[in-house]
Amino acid sequence: MTQNIYDQPAFFEGYSRLPRSVEGLEAAPEWPALKALLPDLAGRKVLDLGCGFGWFCRAARAMGAAEVHGVDVSENMLAKARDATADAAISYARGDLEQIVLRPAAFDLIYSSLTLHYIENLERLVAEVGRALVPGGRLIFSAEHPIYTAPSAPDWTVDDAGRKVWPVDRYLDEGPRTTDWLAKGVIKQHRTIGTYLNLLIGLGLTVTHVEEWGPTAAQITAQPVLAIERERPAFLLVAAQKGAP
Amino acid sequence: MTQNIYDQPAFFEGYSRLPRSVEGLEAAPEWPALKALLPDLAGRKVLDLGCGFGWFCRAARAMGAAEVHGVDVSENMLAKARDATADAAISYARGDLEQIVLRPAAFDLIYSSLTLHYIENLERLVAEVGRALVPGGRLIFSAEHPIYTAPSAPDWTVDDAGRKVWPVDRYLDEGPRTTDWLAKGVIKQHRTIGTYLNLLIGLGLTVTHVEEWGPTAAQITAQPVLAIERERPAFLLVAAQKGAP
Repeated sequence: MTQNIYDQPAFFEGYSRLPRSVEGLEAAPEWPALKALLPDLAGRKVLDLGCGFGWFCRAARAMGAAEVHGVDVSENMLAKARDATADAAISYARGDLEQIVLRPAAFDLIYSSLTLHYIENLERLVAEVGRALVPGGRLIFSAEHPIYTAPSAPDWTVDDAGRKVWPVDRYLDEGPRTTDWLAKGVIKQHRTIGTYLNLLIGLGLTVTHVEEWGPTAAQITAQPVLAIERERPAFLLVAAQKGAP
Repeated sequence: MTQNIYDQPAFFEGYSRLPRSVEGLEAAPEWPALKALLPDLAGRKVLDLGCGFGWFCRAARAMGAAEVHGVDVSENMLAKARDATADAAISYARGDLEQIVLRPAAFDLIYSSLTLHYIENLERLVAEVGRALVPGGRLIFSAEHPIYTAPSAPDWTVDDAGRKVWPVDRYLDEGPRTTDWLAKGVIKQHRTIGTYLNLLIGLGLTVTHVEEWGPTAAQITAQPVLAIERERPAFLLVAAQKGAP
């Protein structure tokens, strides 16, 4: 089973205080870029892998989805998601994404935000996703960018010229990375962009968009602290379609 | 026109002494990975953009290609390519890849090794490539990886723990980078993996493989100096196909 860090009290408390947890999608700076990749959801069946507090599930429903299913490993998060949701077309279920079995050809869109970099057996999960999509169905996900996950010491350093730089090493050494973020010993799975994309391609998905996310000029004006995020991408956004587009 | 650095005497002399210039493809550590992406070339028409000394053109012909055309901006390199080639099915032409016009639906494979990161108007060139491929035809290229091209100071540094790290900054700031490699003031064009791939996708190509190249364990055993290349990828390898696979 995936490390269920979200149900560790200290982590959950910290995570619950992040702007994106309190205010939802609009407080996630990568959301506009991810939203731009979504197909028309009117009447569609949607699955959110790693749904957290259910912000995307409710947004997808507001965008016209006929039914939305959210899955998460965290009891704490699902409890809050259920509390915040009063809509019979949205359902939440606890599930370990390392083990989950999905209904074949059941979803028009499978979405996942900042979850897949926790998954050890991504090959298995993506194969489930491939089966669970209808022909022409979409997979849209964000994950921590491999530049972000690779380093032995993933933090800014200052070079001799006084520039903030991100010290990349171990990029091609795929596998677990243990970091301290909100709690000590958070385990992520580092893999290259090539590995993500070839996995999708190998399962019959067509890659339709790849984005190494950084804030726009307007976002930096509104929130200057974001500027450094253009020095190295923290997030990878990918859209793919089952079969040929 | 692209900076024609290969025709500057100091650069050309330095480049001519590199193992891959003297010994050909077998001395390029990424060649086995690139070769693995090639389709069966028997009876095929092949174009090499940035053919240099013609090593790939001759290899493609040895792999059974019916005709092979090499294009390069460097007079010096084409002269050596012609000297080394005695085969009427291989032709070389001088061309600026910023301006080149290709025959429509003329090639089964368009290949390009470590050339596209010099091209300023890549959108124009890739549109030419898209038109010049037959339906189902392949584009296979290598380019310097954006992690390699991005930094203000693209060289290894040593962190506080004594690890060699590659200091990434400016990753999302696409555009020219001036570096010193064999000669001073070599201009490369930095762009993200997303930009490369979305350009292909937008022109109706299907991405079939993406590889962030690093040496294999066997290569490192044979040539220990390569080990550091696993810390950050120097090369990006991409295969794509015109239309659906």
